[in-house]
Order: sequence, then structure tokens, then C-alpha cells
Amino acid sequence: MNVLILGAGQLARMMSLASKPLNITVRAYDVGSKTVVDPLNSAISYGDLNAGIEFADTITAEFEHISHDVLAQCEASGKLKPSSQAIKTGGDRRLEKALLTKANAANAKHQIIESKADFDQALQTLALPLILKSALEGYDGKGQWRLKDLSQADDIWADIEAFFQGSKSSVKQAVIAEQMVPFDREVSLVGMRDVNGNTKVYPLTENHHTDGVLTVSVALNDNEALQTQAQQIFDSIANALGYVGVLAIEFFQVGDQLLVNEIAPRVHNSGHWTQQGADTCQFENHIRAVCGLPLGSGELVRPTAMINILGEDSIPNAILDIPSVSLHWYGKTKRAGRKMGHINLSATTNQALFERLEKVAMLLPEQAFSDIQQYARSLAANT
Amino acid sequence: MNVLILGAGQLARMMSLASKPLNITVRAYDVGSKTVVDPLNSAISYGDLNAGIEFADTITAEFEHISHDVLAQCEASGKLKPSSQAIKTGGDRRLEKALLTKANAANAKHQIIESKADFDQALQTLALPLILKSALEGYDGKGQWRLKDLSQADDIWADIEAFFQGSKSSVKQAVIAEQMVPFDREVSLVGMRDVNGNTKVYPLTENHHTDGVLTVSVALNDNEALQTQAQQIFDSIANALGYVGVLAIEFFQVGDQLLVNEIAPRVHNSGHWTQQGADTCQFENHIRAVCGLPLGSGELVRPTAMINILGEDSIPNAILDIPSVSLHWYGKTKRAGRKMGHINLSATTNQALFERLEKVAMLLPEQAFSDIQQYARSLAANT
Repeated sequence: MNVLILGAGQLARMMSLASKPLNITVRAYDVGSKTVVDPLNSAISYGDLNAGIEFADTITAEFEHISHDVLAQCEASGKLKPSSQAIKTGGDRRLEKALLTKANAANAKHQIIESKADFDQALQTLALPLILKSALEGYDGKGQWRLKDLSQADDIWADIEAFFQGSKSSVKQAVIAEQMVPFDREVSLVGMRDVNGNTKVYPLTENHHTDGVLTVSVALNDNEALQTQAQQIFDSIANALGYVGVLAIEFFQVGDQLLVNEIAPRVHNSGHWTQQGADTCQFENHIRAVCGLPLGSGELVRPTAMINILGEDSIPNAILDIPSVSLHWYGKTKRAGRKMGHINLSATTNQALFERLEKVAMLLPEQAFSDIQQYARSLAANT
Repeated sequence: MNVLILGAGQLARMMSLASKPLNITVRAYDVGSKTVVDPLNSAISYGDLNAGIEFADTITAEFEHISHDVLAQCEASGKLKPSSQAIKTGGDRRLEKALLTKANAANAKHQIIESKADFDQALQTLALPLILKSALEGYDGKGQWRLKDLSQADDIWADIEAFFQGSKSSVKQAVIAEQMVPFDREVSLVGMRDVNGNTKVYPLTENHHTDGVLTVSVALNDNEALQTQAQQIFDSIANALGYVGVLAIEFFQVGDQLLVNEIAPRVHNSGHWTQQGADTCQFENHIRAVCGLPLGSGELVRPTAMINILGEDSIPNAILDIPSVSLHWYGKTKRAGRKMGHINLSATTNQALFERLEKVAMLLPEQAFSDIQQYARSLAANT
């Protein structure tokens, strides 16, 4: 069986690695160069998108910001899973909010802003502080604002107007204004739905971010009620989309309640720990789902966590000397802040896991990993 | 880092898959076509052995029957690990028996036969029944005899003489006569030794054979004394060879004693279960060892077993619906009896594992898997 993945980054690479043992051949469409490549060997090219569609029995995606004409062409072949609608929903906060309403999934109070009138209304109806995010992907690091005080309103509106004018997207840009949620922590659920509508989920993970980028995920196995709540939201959303494949939902946890922050219609960074901590990892389960195979279990095999490696292309070999540690590089060229790889680690108890996490973090170079070190120390100290 | 593997079969393929997350690039030397290939994409060729040696930082092997001139050329580059002597020892029962003597490892009483006089002496000094095996690899299914009664001696000697004359090996052929061991069961130990001489081992596995070919391995975690005995033998042998990499030792268990049957200087079929049942699988640990990285732990994560798929290129998808089951195809063309893939399965207890093993076996087509079904039933019934 042949699978074409739209996008040729580390997620396509890990799906390809997970597919080889199933005798499933994966090629990836690089949206930059507009060529089909082998995600394990970028020196090899297999032609253009048409050639990729021809090659594939099934087409899927590793990210949601894919141009709509590419999605349309893939959907017309009858091979695209999940649907272009599901992929677009992950790439457009307007569609995402509409989905959450349809699925009756709690989320932050918000308003869509496409004009000055919308902006003014948001200031009247929502409580400050607000976070404003571009509906479509931002560009050049732009597309996100925090409005804490009404005195900022004029400057921010001027900035948003300029942002709208600079947009090169073929789809009209917008901004979503959301009331800031005073959350206790950020958690996420990665789950999957097969072609027959069966769903399975992995345990919730607690996610730690550094400068807005995910740096640590820890699989949680100690809160059944929260897990049940998350799974119900997952089922509502996945069923509302008629989804096929792995889908991730990021939540704000406020007390005992989960508010959806955003969804990702694909394998997700907060699910990388499943390579060591679950029966069947998210990469294999996405491929199983889109190929019409039965889903593997999402059960936690043992407490497991993940550390992202950002902007570094080597770490001390001593890390590998710690038991139950496994290293995953993406084969990418070093660039500041770039996701270069991740470290998975497991242990027999949560306490042992947090101690191991601290041990691994303290072996990493302080300059690049100080925030992770601090978080790991706090986890180990609080158990 | 770049690794060249001598041999381009499923073991090289699985080492390549295990190497990608370490940013280690693996190419394989196909001894048949005498070309260097990508073990994950056989359509790609990278020239001859010289090109492969040039490419590699480290050279290793996936099997022991490699022509001595190839080994010599690789060893001359200073990159070969383990040594050519270790690889040759796995491919020549004379060297293997000398090693066992040097390492003081118990094994069957035996005699090397290179002439009629040796043969006659074996008949006088060893107790019948005997098993006679060619020292080097047999060919065309030849090279093994069972001598139960002296009346067979003349016919068998005639056959051995013809076998010697038909040998195309550049090394002089011989036969090893061994007293048959009345063993209780066959077990094996897979372990690894790093460049500094540190060793780690996986748990012993119980091995079941069908028509002389391994079909099921079950990791054993219930006999500490036997495990200690096996580890001591492993250390003696690996140290005697100055070994680097993964090394497998097959044993006959007779009561509480382990007699070495044979060694394999490489990753081994009875270690395939480590992909799901151990912290770090044998493929990654071999690559870590030969690349000078620290060894990963060999601890059992949970009870795990493996079923070989011989001569079949598809199995029912329902197998994938059973939790903790993972399927590993080798991407090979179907041929009767050929090792096409394997199934790993895990569970939380031995009892649950044996029940799951039976369940998986009973879903496999009876015609090809009846012996495995019978063995699985007996394991499930006896616990």
C-alpha cells in the first residue's frame, strides 16, 4: 500500500519510519519545492503532485496550512483522508470555532474580527485581557497580539489592519479575539478515529512551553475523570468532522474543566512520547487509520515523557547511558529555535519518571535547556 | 555518522530503521550483487564495496557467512566491528568450538572431522546418536547428518566425502560430529558489548522451532539462576572475542544447565521481540555499540513474544485489532519457507501473554501456522 503525505517534515519522516514494518510505502509532497520526496532520503525525488497522487492509494497530511488548490486536487482523487474540510478547519480559527460550537465543546469566549466594527464590538463584549490571533497562519512571526488595556486598542488595530493588508493568502484573513483563560495548566489529548468511526485515545499529557513553543510533554495516568471528559470532547469533535486519522486537541485546564484551545488535524508534538510509552505510536496509528487498518491500543504502557530539542544538533552521549531513554533526531540542519529532535524517557512510576526527567534535563547544556531544567526540577520536587 | 552493513537482508533493514532516529545513515553491501544499497529502498545503489568502505565511519555485518576477502578488505580499513575473527568464528564451527573451549563454556562432546581417520575416531570416542554438521555453511540444503546406528556409518561417510568434494568454499570444509544432547528445551541469550568492554544482556528467550527453523521466541523473566548462568557465559565468550556489538548465544537447556549450541555474531531472530519488549531493541543496541555510543538497557519492559511469518506475505488484519500486537514485514517477495516478517506481542503478565499468543496464533491461517498454533495452545494450557 502507498501513502502520500502532504508536507515533508519530521512528522512525515516518523510516519514513514512507522510504515515500513507494515510494508506501507510513504512518499511526501514538499509544499515548498512542489516535489514528491522520500521523507527518509531527501536526495530522492519522485516528480510533482500529479505523480504523487498517481502513486498513492491514500493521501494524508502532516500539517494543516496547505494551499486550498492542493487540497482540492487531492480530494478530487477520492484518496484524501482526513477530508479537506477537516484539514482546513485546523488551519483556520474561524472554522475551528464553528466546529467547537457544533460539537458543543467548551472554549474561551471569543469574537471573529474582519473589520473595525468587529474589533470595537469585541472590546465591548469581551472582558480584558484579550488575546488576538490570526485566523489563518501568521507570517514572519506576526499574527498574535495581547490587549491588556484599552489604551493599546488604537495601536493594535493599526497593526491588525497592516497585517490584513500584508496577507498573501488566497483566503481572506481574519483575527480571533479571545478572552484570556486563567488556566491552571495546558494539557492535550491525542486520539484517532478509523474509517468505520471507531475511536481510541492516548492518555492526556501535561504540556510545558518555553517562549510559546512546546518543550516538555508528560503522559498523565492519574486523573480518570479528566481523561473521560477529554475523550468525550474528542469523540464529539472527531465525529462532527467525520474524521479519519490522528487528531490532537489542546486544552486549557481550569479547575476540573477542560476548555479547548485548538485542534490539530494530524499527529502532534505532544504525542511523540507514544513511540516509547504506548502500544502503538501515534505515527503508526495515523497510518493504520488512513489505510483502513484496525487502530492499535492507546493505553499507557508505563509513565513516559518527552523533551523537545530546539535549535541544537547534538546533545551529550551520556543521555543514552540513562535507562529507558530514547533519542529521535529529525535529520535537519541546525537553525535557531528549530525543532531538531526529541528525547523520550520512561520509568515504572511517576516519581521515578520525574527523577529521570530531571536527571536527563540536568545533563543537557544549560544555555539551551535552562527552562526545561527548571520545569523538570519542579516536577521532581512536587511529587 | 555512517554505517556500512555487510549483508542487505531484513536484519540490515531493521538496523537501518533503528538508526534513523539517531541521525545515523546505514547502507548495506549486498554480497550477491556486490553493490551497496539503501536497505530501506533497494532501488537505490551506491556503487561497489570500495565506495561503501569510503562512505562508512563504521562497518559491521548482519550475517557471518561473508567471504574472507571481503572481511579482510573491510578490516584493513580499520572500521570493522566486530572483528573479522569474531565474524569468522560465527561462520566456522571449528573456530566456534575452539572459542567455547577458550571461554570455558560447556557444550556437547564433539570431534572435528576432516578425514576418514577423524570420522572413525569420532565413532569410537563419542556416544551415539551423533549429529554431524558442516563446519562452514552447508549448500543446497546439504551439510547435516544424523547417525543413530553404526550400520549407517559407511553411507554417511560416503555422503560426507562427496560433500567435501563438492564444496566451492575457498576455506577447507570440515564436519563437526557432536553427541546429541537430550535437552529439555532450546533457549537463547542476546547481549551486547560496547567498545569499552561493558556488557548488557536481554532476558533469555525460550525458542520453538518448526522443521528446524525458529518460529516462536518468548522472553523469560522467571528464572534468575538460569539468567545469571547465561550472562556469565555471554561475558566469557564476548570478552574472549574482544567483541563489539550484539552477539547471540543459542543454548540447550538440560535440567539446570546450559550447553552452548552455537553463537551468532550479530543481531538474531530470537531477539526481534526486543522491538516491543525492551527499552532499547537489539538493532539499536548493535548500532550504538559499533558507533561507540553507550548501550541501552536490556531490561524486560513487559512479557513479550515473537512469531515468525514464514513463506506468507499477508495475514488477517484482525491480528492488528488485538492490543499490544505489532507487525513487522521485511518487504520481501514471497517464497516458500522464506522469513517474510514477524509479529511481536506483549501483555502485562506471562499468563496474559500466553493467552494472547494463542489468540493471535488461532487467527493465522492453519495451513501455514498449525505447528505454531499447537505450541501456543500448549503454553497457554500449561500456565
